[in-house]
Amino acid sequence: VWTIVVAAGTGERFGRPKQFEDLGGRSVLDWALSTAGAASDGVVTVLPAGHAALGSDASTVAGGRTRAESVRCGLAAVPEEAEVICVHDAARPFASPDLFAAVVAAVRGGADGAVPGLAVTDTIKVVDRDGVVVSTPDRASLIAVQTPQAFRADVLRRAHVAGAEGTDDAALVEAVGGRVVVVAGEANNRKLTHPVDLEWARRLLSDDAERPR
Amino acid sequence: VWTIVVAAGTGERFGRPKQFEDLGGRSVLDWALSTAGAASDGVVTVLPAGHAALGSDASTVAGGRTRAESVRCGLAAVPEEAEVICVHDAARPFASPDLFAAVVAAVRGGADGAVPGLAVTDTIKVVDRDGVVVSTPDRASLIAVQTPQAFRADVLRRAHVAGAEGTDDAALVEAVGGRVVVVAGEANNRKLTHPVDLEWARRLLSDDAERPR
Repeated sequence: VWTIVVAAGTGERFGRPKQFEDLGGRSVLDWALSTAGAASDGVVTVLPAGHAALGSDASTVAGGRTRAESVRCGLAAVPEEAEVICVHDAARPFASPDLFAAVVAAVRGGADGAVPGLAVTDTIKVVDRDGVVVSTPDRASLIAVQTPQAFRADVLRRAHVAGAEGTDDAALVEAVGGRVVVVAGEANNRKLTHPVDLEWARRLLSDDAERPR
Repeated sequence: VWTIVVAAGTGERFGRPKQFEDLGGRSVLDWALSTAGAASDGVVTVLPAGHAALGSDASTVAGGRTRAESVRCGLAAVPEEAEVICVHDAARPFASPDLFAAVVAAVRGGADGAVPGLAVTDTIKVVDRDGVVVSTPDRASLIAVQTPQAFRADVLRRAHVAGAEGTDDAALVEAVGGRVVVVAGEANNRKLTHPVDLEWARRLLSDDAERPR
């Protein structure tokens, strides 16, 4: 099992690359790396092109212009003998080791891919370019997905042909006919997208520190 | 313009009826009622059947077994001369007067209905009953909707035939061919679904109190 930690984002919505922000004394990225490292035989970290840490060891590579391109940069550094490959967002510091284990187990159990998902509580609508509602999908059939996402290595490599794009890797695997299953996601496994999310993460840590053990 | 404030929920996910919880010295429902009252010529509040405040004045009615039934109970109490009817969740204390004005203006401007919407930041997938992914809709075409939702009164009444169900009123209007448009939603206009949401709302108020004016 190898994990690609995608940390190549520029933080467009956040205002700066959020993966390097401090969270309880270490970077957001370090949180993701430490869990990924414990859950995998090896980790490849995809950093922004030009980042100072690049080349510091063999497991860091430079990313591309899009998220999918960055994953492909990471894939090229994953050894051929890897059977299961996880892809994880560096901006999700609180994914648990159990969550990594759950998606890997689902792939070992026969799926081409496995993603963590949470029930959607908002009503979601499909809109056209003019902001007119096209449809309201049944909420019970929708899930909001997270990372880590795990895949059979051969299927992930096949899905990631040059130029393929999507907001997650599972979408690319689905596009080549792969069977992707959903495992229970985790409420605290939020992606830090806006500054308020980082404030939430810091508060969660300090609440945890205050809690009697 | 009349507004139906739906406060008939039993708080299944919350653990108790959240609309009566304290938020800065008044109930969550009171927050919603005060904004709805300022934005409308009249307000009908739909309370749980058997609630003590029922019948205290003509503008409170008892709800039904589902959200849509409760809205129909409210609709029956809205005067025939109402031209625009808004429906608002009591569990959204922080919708602004501007948001009410925006949805009403969109209906005055020719739409059958108008809903506040926010961009979806998660990747959303459609799954089947076995938890297998069916598709990944393009995220750019998805919005998460809020209330208040405003409608042409005649179209809303036509959409709310006995037995019609949906997670929001716009879905019923869409089902009878109504044209529903999206206006920009508000980040603080969250629905208090879980206890942690109420904690968030209380913290937001206390942060506001501390902020220099």
